[in-house]
Amino acid sequence: MSISIKPLADRVIVAPAAAEEKTKSGIIIPDTAKEKPQRGEVVAIGEGKLSEQGALMKPQVQVGDQVLYGKYAGTEISVEGNDYLIMRESDILAIL
Amino acid sequence: MSISIKPLADRVIVAPAAAEEKTKSGIIIPDTAKEKPQRGEVVAIGEGKLSEQGALMKPQVQVGDQVLYGKYAGTEISVEGNDYLIMRESDILAIL
Amino acid sequence: MSISIKPLADRVIVAPAAAEEKTKSGIIIPDTAKEKPQRGEVVAIGEGKLSEQGALMKPQVQVGDQVLYGKYAGTEISVEGNDYLIMRESDILAIL
Amino acid sequence: MSISIKPLADRVIVAPAAAEEKTKSGIIIPDTAKEKPQRGEVVAIGEGKLSEQGALMKPQVQVGDQVLYGKYAGTEISVEGNDYLIMRESDILAIL
Amino acid sequence: MSISIKPLADRVIVAPAAAEEKTKSGIIIPDTAKEKPQRGEVVAIGEGKLSEQGALMKPQVQVGDQVLYGKYAGTEISVEGNDYLIMRESDILAIL
Amino acid sequence: MSISIKPLADRVIVAPAAAEEKTKSGIIIPDTAKEKPQRGEVVAIGEGKLSEQGALMKPQVQVGDQVLYGKYAGTEISVEGNDYLIMRESDILAIL
Amino acid sequence: MSISIKPLADRVIVAPAAAEEKTKSGIIIPDTAKEKPQRGEVVAIGEGKLSEQGALMKPQVQVGDQVLYGKYAGTEISVEGNDYLIMRESDILAIL
Repeated sequence: MSISIKPLADRVIVAPAAAEEKTKSGIIIPDTAKEKPQRGEVVAIGEGKLSEQGALMKPQVQVGDQVLYGKYAGTEISVEGNDYLIMRESDILAIL
Repeated sequence: MSISIKPLADRVIVAPAAAEEKTKSGIIIPDTAKEKPQRGEVVAIGEGKLSEQGALMKPQVQVGDQVLYGKYAGTEISVEGNDYLIMRESDILAIL
Repeated sequence: MSISIKPLADRVIVAPAAAEEKTKSGIIIPDTAKEKPQRGEVVAIGEGKLSEQGALMKPQVQVGDQVLYGKYAGTEISVEGNDYLIMRESDILAIL
Repeated sequence: MSISIKPLADRVIVAPAAAEEKTKSGIIIPDTAKEKPQRGEVVAIGEGKLSEQGALMKPQVQVGDQVLYGKYAGTEISVEGNDYLIMRESDILAIL
Repeated sequence: MSISIKPLADRVIVAPAAAEEKTKSGIIIPDTAKEKPQRGEVVAIGEGKLSEQGALMKPQVQVGDQVLYGKYAGTEISVEGNDYLIMRESDILAIL
Repeated sequence: MSISIKPLADRVIVAPAAAEEKTKSGIIIPDTAKEKPQRGEVVAIGEGKLSEQGALMKPQVQVGDQVLYGKYAGTEISVEGNDYLIMRESDILAIL
Repeated sequence: MSISIKPLADRVIVAPAAAEEKTKSGIIIPDTAKEKPQRGEVVAIGEGKLSEQGALMKPQVQVGDQVLYGKYAGTEISVEGNDYLIMRESDILAIL
């Protein structure tokens, strides 16, 4: 899964997983959980943030990575009927 | 589309897209959405911000780029009857 | 237009434009606008801010530049009956 | 004990110790304590944070370390029925 | 005018001008003005602040400079019956 | 006096002195004092904090140092019936 | 006057001057003054703060210096019946 939008700097676009899905690692995140992190797939990444030295700091996640992110991370966008989240890479907690 | 105003440092000027437009990527952002990002075209860019090391950090967007930006980003200016937004490049979320 | 006051560091002095003026670019900023940026002419500039490395970071604006700045930017001073604003260069949004 | 989730940057995953456990050092943390730190075992670590110079700052804790952490540190995740905490390495106070 | 007190780091001591004085530049600052900057003469300067790189950042003002500063800048001290203000150099807006 | 717990980064573990003790320097800190600093002995130190340049900044205190620290510094831990405080080295005011 | 306590990093210990004292510079600070700076003598200094580059930034004040400091600067300590203040060097405004 990938989309043609290019996030800027250290931003990534994530396709949220359906609530009932189960990952290879067997993570189940009950939707009743308060403040529990969410799961999704990275569908686009930015080129990275520039450091104060002008060096490009490349993102550590890749398109296709299954990731966990905080419940309130990111901004919703909608492309051809599908909902995505655009967030900073630092909003991503872990790769599954 | 371009205008003769020169934004300073890391600022860019964006011409907001009409609400009913549809991009090549097919993004439709319903105007009823709360806090949803907005879409527009970059019409002028600054030379970039100076880092603490004195290096010029050039903007990653270019004049003509179709971009997404946060709903409350930027300051409105009006040139020859047209409305634009002047914002920092970091207010831009993605290039379409 | 220029005045004999020397702003310190990254500060500049701006002579606000009369409300009914019209620039070459044709910008008209109706005075009823809420939070709209203001227009004026730079009449004095500081030598620039020192970076953490001790390097002088020269201002990007010059005396004579027509500029846009935020509605609440700067501090009013009055020289020989004329009102000016002294502000940081970062309060300037764009050069017209 | 280890799990297949990869924390990002300077994050680590900790398996909280059962409340009644006693470490080799003999630490007992009564569960009535207010604001007392908690104890657990590191089960996964990130690759480290990038410094502003672009250098990778490796974590000082290792998988298997018994650690103390603040009572409200981290975000709960649940993997195959087990509860873990994902937190920044800086939330860890000490290695037992 | 100079005094024997040595301000530390990036601090300067200023002798406030009498309210009715008029400078060479002809600045008159009516004392009814709200938040208007004040005028005075620099009577002592510190050696400068050390940057994070350990470089000494020398002050740009000199003893004898007539300066403008914010209305609430600095701390009052009193030497042999005279009132002075001790402030950071960054509180000084301009040299007259 | 020393314990087998390893504080992380710039943290140290301090054994608080009994309220009635008197140091070689003769400091007496009456327990009625409000906001007065506390006294104790360093029993464990971390390896130091990594600077942004990746350099290890070693702690200036050593195990065995008698130190003063702010009244509300640190987090209480309890090891084999003894109470300690784990705090950042910057919470330590002075070595006695 | 000097005491055997070693302040840490960029801290200094100051012996406050008696309220009625008069310095060589003739400063008199009436004790009715609100927010006026205080005067005292430096009796101990730390080795200095480490910069982000790991360089030791030595204090600019010396033991024996008569200094001005803000009214609410520092923390009170009491050594052999005498009261002192332990503060950061940046709390010191000037050397008399």
